[in-house]
Amino acid sequence: MDGEQAPGLWERPGRFMAAEAGYDAARWVLAGAPLELTVSYRAGTRWGPARIREASYALETYSPDLDRDLEEQAIHDAGDVALPLGNLGQSLARIEAALRRPLADGKALLVLGGEHLVTLAAVNAALDRYPDLVVVQLDAHTDLRDRYLGEPYSHATVMRRVLDLVGPGRLWQLGPRSGLREEFELARREGRFFRDVGEGAEALAAELAGPLRGVPVYLTVDIDVLDPAVAPGTGTPEPGGPDFATVQRAIYTLARAGARVVAADVVETAPPLDPSGRTEIVAAKLVREILLAFAPAAA
Amino acid sequence: MDGEQAPGLWERPGRFMAAEAGYDAARWVLAGAPLELTVSYRAGTRWGPARIREASYALETYSPDLDRDLEEQAIHDAGDVALPLGNLGQSLARIEAALRRPLADGKALLVLGGEHLVTLAAVNAALDRYPDLVVVQLDAHTDLRDRYLGEPYSHATVMRRVLDLVGPGRLWQLGPRSGLREEFELARREGRFFRDVGEGAEALAAELAGPLRGVPVYLTVDIDVLDPAVAPGTGTPEPGGPDFATVQRAIYTLARAGARVVAADVVETAPPLDPSGRTEIVAAKLVREILLAFAPAAA
Amino acid sequence: MDGEQAPGLWERPGRFMAAEAGYDAARWVLAGAPLELTVSYRAGTRWGPARIREASYALETYSPDLDRDLEEQAIHDAGDVALPLGNLGQSLARIEAALRRPLADGKALLVLGGEHLVTLAAVNAALDRYPDLVVVQLDAHTDLRDRYLGEPYSHATVMRRVLDLVGPGRLWQLGPRSGLREEFELARREGRFFRDVGEGAEALAAELAGPLRGVPVYLTVDIDVLDPAVAPGTGTPEPGGPDFATVQRAIYTLARAGARVVAADVVETAPPLDPSGRTEIVAAKLVREILLAFAPAAA
Amino acid sequence: MDGEQAPGLWERPGRFMAAEAGYDAARWVLAGAPLELTVSYRAGTRWGPARIREASYALETYSPDLDRDLEEQAIHDAGDVALPLGNLGQSLARIEAALRRPLADGKALLVLGGEHLVTLAAVNAALDRYPDLVVVQLDAHTDLRDRYLGEPYSHATVMRRVLDLVGPGRLWQLGPRSGLREEFELARREGRFFRDVGEGAEALAAELAGPLRGVPVYLTVDIDVLDPAVAPGTGTPEPGGPDFATVQRAIYTLARAGARVVAADVVETAPPLDPSGRTEIVAAKLVREILLAFAPAAA
Amino acid sequence: MDGEQAPGLWERPGRFMAAEAGYDAARWVLAGAPLELTVSYRAGTRWGPARIREASYALETYSPDLDRDLEEQAIHDAGDVALPLGNLGQSLARIEAALRRPLADGKALLVLGGEHLVTLAAVNAALDRYPDLVVVQLDAHTDLRDRYLGEPYSHATVMRRVLDLVGPGRLWQLGPRSGLREEFELARREGRFFRDVGEGAEALAAELAGPLRGVPVYLTVDIDVLDPAVAPGTGTPEPGGPDFATVQRAIYTLARAGARVVAADVVETAPPLDPSGRTEIVAAKLVREILLAFAPAAA
Amino acid sequence: MDGEQAPGLWERPGRFMAAEAGYDAARWVLAGAPLELTVSYRAGTRWGPARIREASYALETYSPDLDRDLEEQAIHDAGDVALPLGNLGQSLARIEAALRRPLADGKALLVLGGEHLVTLAAVNAALDRYPDLVVVQLDAHTDLRDRYLGEPYSHATVMRRVLDLVGPGRLWQLGPRSGLREEFELARREGRFFRDVGEGAEALAAELAGPLRGVPVYLTVDIDVLDPAVAPGTGTPEPGGPDFATVQRAIYTLARAGARVVAADVVETAPPLDPSGRTEIVAAKLVREILLAFAPAAA
Repeated sequence: MDGEQAPGLWERPGRFMAAEAGYDAARWVLAGAPLELTVSYRAGTRWGPARIREASYALETYSPDLDRDLEEQAIHDAGDVALPLGNLGQSLARIEAALRRPLADGKALLVLGGEHLVTLAAVNAALDRYPDLVVVQLDAHTDLRDRYLGEPYSHATVMRRVLDLVGPGRLWQLGPRSGLREEFELARREGRFFRDVGEGAEALAAELAGPLRGVPVYLTVDIDVLDPAVAPGTGTPEPGGPDFATVQRAIYTLARAGARVVAADVVETAPPLDPSGRTEIVAAKLVREILLAFAPAAA
Repeated sequence: MDGEQAPGLWERPGRFMAAEAGYDAARWVLAGAPLELTVSYRAGTRWGPARIREASYALETYSPDLDRDLEEQAIHDAGDVALPLGNLGQSLARIEAALRRPLADGKALLVLGGEHLVTLAAVNAALDRYPDLVVVQLDAHTDLRDRYLGEPYSHATVMRRVLDLVGPGRLWQLGPRSGLREEFELARREGRFFRDVGEGAEALAAELAGPLRGVPVYLTVDIDVLDPAVAPGTGTPEPGGPDFATVQRAIYTLARAGARVVAADVVETAPPLDPSGRTEIVAAKLVREILLAFAPAAA
Repeated sequence: MDGEQAPGLWERPGRFMAAEAGYDAARWVLAGAPLELTVSYRAGTRWGPARIREASYALETYSPDLDRDLEEQAIHDAGDVALPLGNLGQSLARIEAALRRPLADGKALLVLGGEHLVTLAAVNAALDRYPDLVVVQLDAHTDLRDRYLGEPYSHATVMRRVLDLVGPGRLWQLGPRSGLREEFELARREGRFFRDVGEGAEALAAELAGPLRGVPVYLTVDIDVLDPAVAPGTGTPEPGGPDFATVQRAIYTLARAGARVVAADVVETAPPLDPSGRTEIVAAKLVREILLAFAPAAA
Repeated sequence: MDGEQAPGLWERPGRFMAAEAGYDAARWVLAGAPLELTVSYRAGTRWGPARIREASYALETYSPDLDRDLEEQAIHDAGDVALPLGNLGQSLARIEAALRRPLADGKALLVLGGEHLVTLAAVNAALDRYPDLVVVQLDAHTDLRDRYLGEPYSHATVMRRVLDLVGPGRLWQLGPRSGLREEFELARREGRFFRDVGEGAEALAAELAGPLRGVPVYLTVDIDVLDPAVAPGTGTPEPGGPDFATVQRAIYTLARAGARVVAADVVETAPPLDPSGRTEIVAAKLVREILLAFAPAAA
Repeated sequence: MDGEQAPGLWERPGRFMAAEAGYDAARWVLAGAPLELTVSYRAGTRWGPARIREASYALETYSPDLDRDLEEQAIHDAGDVALPLGNLGQSLARIEAALRRPLADGKALLVLGGEHLVTLAAVNAALDRYPDLVVVQLDAHTDLRDRYLGEPYSHATVMRRVLDLVGPGRLWQLGPRSGLREEFELARREGRFFRDVGEGAEALAAELAGPLRGVPVYLTVDIDVLDPAVAPGTGTPEPGGPDFATVQRAIYTLARAGARVVAADVVETAPPLDPSGRTEIVAAKLVREILLAFAPAAA
Repeated sequence: MDGEQAPGLWERPGRFMAAEAGYDAARWVLAGAPLELTVSYRAGTRWGPARIREASYALETYSPDLDRDLEEQAIHDAGDVALPLGNLGQSLARIEAALRRPLADGKALLVLGGEHLVTLAAVNAALDRYPDLVVVQLDAHTDLRDRYLGEPYSHATVMRRVLDLVGPGRLWQLGPRSGLREEFELARREGRFFRDVGEGAEALAAELAGPLRGVPVYLTVDIDVLDPAVAPGTGTPEPGGPDFATVQRAIYTLARAGARVVAADVVETAPPLDPSGRTEIVAAKLVREILLAFAPAAA
């Protein structure tokens, strides 16, 4: 690598704070997936990964509530998955392929979206390694439509496709407050549905201490689960959600219950829609808390 | 109507979601009143009706909390009242005239403001048909001045004029946290004043089950009753207000108590003041919840 | 239609100013195509048609430079083509189908984008009726790539596909100042390329008076042909373009030369990227000038 | 005045740069008139005076093109005329009354708008002292309607009212590029109309050297005369206008011709519509150049 | 002062509402300190004092919760401390010098920041007069680093310097939720640390009724103590904070306990970072509540 | 480096487009210097380097006007100089030290600011290697004050310090339209001053063909040389500047004259001040044109 970098005191922007580990040494691998193809209302999630990384520097690496520090973790920031333009199927395939490798190498995965469809690719990748995966979704929307404007793959159908993959009873939905009547019926029938994030976390914690002990968990956080006052920079803000502390507590509840999170994502952050810039800071803090709350779980 | 519309698959923007009924069939009539003439601090309410309609498409027609769907309602979107420029008296007269007809036809009315003075015109129209009208105001401000900078008609005096019309004891104010000392004194003396939205709703619900049973109710929601974190896009945001869920619960409290809402408005949404665009979504969701919570009440 | 509209003095938002004619009576048909699927840098063109219509009311219907008035024209605003989500092929097919009918009926067409790919659908529709179509493109970019990130259909390849359709020599490009070297080589070899908008218009005018007399013309205006100072609200603003008056003059040059414009579009306006709101006004004024400069040409 | 101001080194914001003279000593009096009552499209001019003053500190007091410095001028910043809310007639009367006094005292006047109607009040005040006043208008719009939406007083009728006051031939319009056909006909018939700002300035300069020598001039600059690229922060931006240097040169042309400007205004700056903040800087620079270019002319 | 001000009805912008008292008569002195030199993430606090004053006019002078009115207080707005550019030491010295005088004159002080370092200058000034000063800090951050990027004076070290001045046990920190591990350790060891604002206020109130009775208090409110949803316009917004009512209640708790506040500040408001403009209104309301809650305490 | 990067198809954001060369192979070295310490009006230049790099991807690597492509150049993006907080002297020293090395290695340097003071550090570094350096400044401001608010080092004094370094006659100023009278006098006396960018470029080109043939040139472009319509995102926008094409032509004029540019900078881009995002694109295009127009000149 001689001569590759200019000599002297230089900084290279573009990494999440404290994600300084090389790939081999890392227990967490952070990956951006700036997918944005099925937007229905307002756009901007493709800028999510870049701005969340940048915003992380507005925070400390230390979490006083957890009394843990990112600098004591081995985190590798892999960059963004390189995506083709306008081709949804190929994009999902590339994300899945890119994420499969770190999972195979026993790394825990933290994916920065991008739109919610990245969860489908990531769950697909995770199921390969963890066939008994349970998916936990924090979201304002059920995202359980079978088709949306005729299309089977969209941010409004993503959790239906995930439900198809993991099967009844293995999708926990915490917080949805918007959807079609049939989506809520399906959520209650085949999923584990909780209108209240906190109650859902408690219920899941109870099972994690019992029947679900040790099960590998995929945690997907759609930033719009938060009230739009807290996270306005998202495509379909839905009034009436919880504040930051409530979502933070739900994460702690799962962590204290020993949830074995093997992969997680934070999706639907659309920075251009929030000129105050706080949504990406909120997303970055959620990422920090997830990285710190859950000890990486190798197979 | 042959030849009026281009043949083929076209969409016409400009209606509130699911407001597809013709006038005759409708039980609810939705009307915009983009009045904006007495602004004291910051402007933009004239864009309220257009943006609230547009924002409604970010939401679902179904309310999971109420388990009701706008698509099961007969709602007619009448468009906006055509207003002259800069002439307040004539504007109020036109709004009143335009609204009188649907009320006479036994429709329930949902008015989108515009500044709060539209409530005066709408209450005037409603009193014609419902002389025993009770007015319920959710608002951060008392709006009870007799004059504001010398003028009897302004967004700061509107509820005083309404109080003049309906008489002592028939104006319920829920949530005001700003005003002059004499306004609060008047509110407590001649109105029914509750600093707390939830407590006010409970007290009103109790009377709706008793002395006020069956009385026709006009519900006016000034969007600034919400904390500015929730609804920043309004002319005079007043810190320290309730969150969305609290206001939503107050509406449910009234609905469960059988409130007979014959007309309602959502006013003071000023979209240009909120570049995140969430205030108009908040307004649209309040409209949806009001349309669904209160069964239209004909005379 | 009795009972369809509330009685009284109402306005219905959602039409371009003065586009009050019914379809049958109209000579111009205005159509929105809010397509946005292959964005590479920044998003927002899906809001183009709605905002351009709204912005038209900031302008007069009268053009003092042309001494003509939209109110003296018969213009029908057909609304927007209803588009599926995330399916590019189907979207293009629907746009093409929707536009084919007015062209078949001998109407002149003015399409509001949406991203530049709508031009491909519109040219396809127009070729059916006008097989000898010449396409005139005002644009900052050549848009002549054969593939873009592997995809044959995108805003970066659209004019290559159009060139495939109309054949060498029938695509006039006025103003491109950005592209790959091979695009510029192709533009010069198979198209008619002019770096300067005004020079290009003069050259075309000369041929319109000669070999191209009477040929049906499709005029596509990518709003980014203008300098970003003039039209910042677009996905890929390219510094160094002409001002508004220069583009206006080019349109007049073609009109004076008797250009028989059978269809036109104004594309790539992305209102959310311009908080000053002037880009949609610029687009609306271009639409007005095109509608007034070119007398609709039936077959 | 002992004890009025805290002892020590304090700054008081709120004055135009270098406007440090007391009233008696001043030759120029600067006055704000934050009137905003007849807005038709977008609001914000009430913030004009405050933001233009603030923005002046982004500039130097010295004009290199004129080689003059505001610090060598005696300028008094009188503050803003105190305006009632929502009452147009009374507002205009107050502005007129407030401005009459400095004119009577032989001061030259520079008024910061507010909407264009302030010009009517100011011209009324000036006519008292200068009955042979000639009005020079730099504007994108003719503003010559007799009525606008039924109202005789509005920003769209203001120059018609001014024309009523000063009489045929005494209103020079430089730059209008938008209006009704009848407005342009009237402008050409009864006013002195020039589509091009520079040509108009040259023509006026010629008459100032001849028949109009020594005549008192009222100069009104509607900021929207500039292209919206230069001054986007205004209510009805009209594409296709001149750049800053062109307007600056027109002012110099008049100054070199010895124009005796007894009063001037810069109106229609709407700072909230320009988040880049440059429109108020443009307005402040126009104010500086006017203050420096025209030596105050006492009677 | 003859001839200093133009005769007539003029308003002078630039004061906090109701701060109309002369210096000698005043019990409260309001002072701006638009210092901004050690920003680490995002800028804009230099505009704090000007915008907070302006925003105060969106509020009433009357606080219904306290039933007190600013118009019944004698408040002098001294303007802003004149600051040199880019020289931190000299800036702090000037602020300290400017503030020392009103304190010596027995006035209570309310300082508008500017960045948090103004607190250091203000505490220094206050210690002169009140050597037994206790400092109460409402803040999202501990601000207790010894050095930040090598520098001893910055917004991240300011409370460490204050702690150096007042000594162990005399710095009360209410609300910090971000910092280094060693900062939290120091806060708990040498300061009085409360993660929860309300609990901290109760604890302090208890001591104010006992061992700390009558002690002079300096109250510093970093606007970022509030959740970013409430106050997004600040340099380093930290998700997970209290809402406005919680902070308001904490102030009331201290007031009811008889806290003798001799000086206070509200710092770190960065208006350009909040295009909705509500953060400066929040700051202005905090200022109003502090001015009303605490009776000025002379020595 | 095994195991340093995650295996698979990843992209790493954070480089200027096509700046893919390693340091040793590079002829151009690109360096960010996000210095921002002496802002007088509005802030944001610290975000310049990051956003200019990001914005470069909105452009092509190929310049059709020059018919050259960045992909045919060997460019190394060294990242940003790591800067201490709030310490101006140390910051300048670090920038100078970091830049000295590539210059010593015979690389040509392109520095992204950051405020204009970075030019002082860069010129200092360059003088070491090129004692006969001539500095060419494109700027709206003279920046020739000896002190600004008492300070010798600020963005308003930077070119005075540079003039001190290079000596009379070796500073060419193209375009200044703002400054104090004494600055313009100094510029004309000791520098080479041209109010008009184009005229200045021609004059310099003439000397480059004669007495200055082969002299090493430092080119500093303050983005505010452009009219604020073109580049609104800068701290002190000065109305009345040239458009993009004019500045581009000036660069070509120098290039055609064989200017031997050994180092260059583009400074004062403040992205947060331009929500349309075009200023950073303008800056990126200037960088591209400079990189392509001037062949790197080793000693």
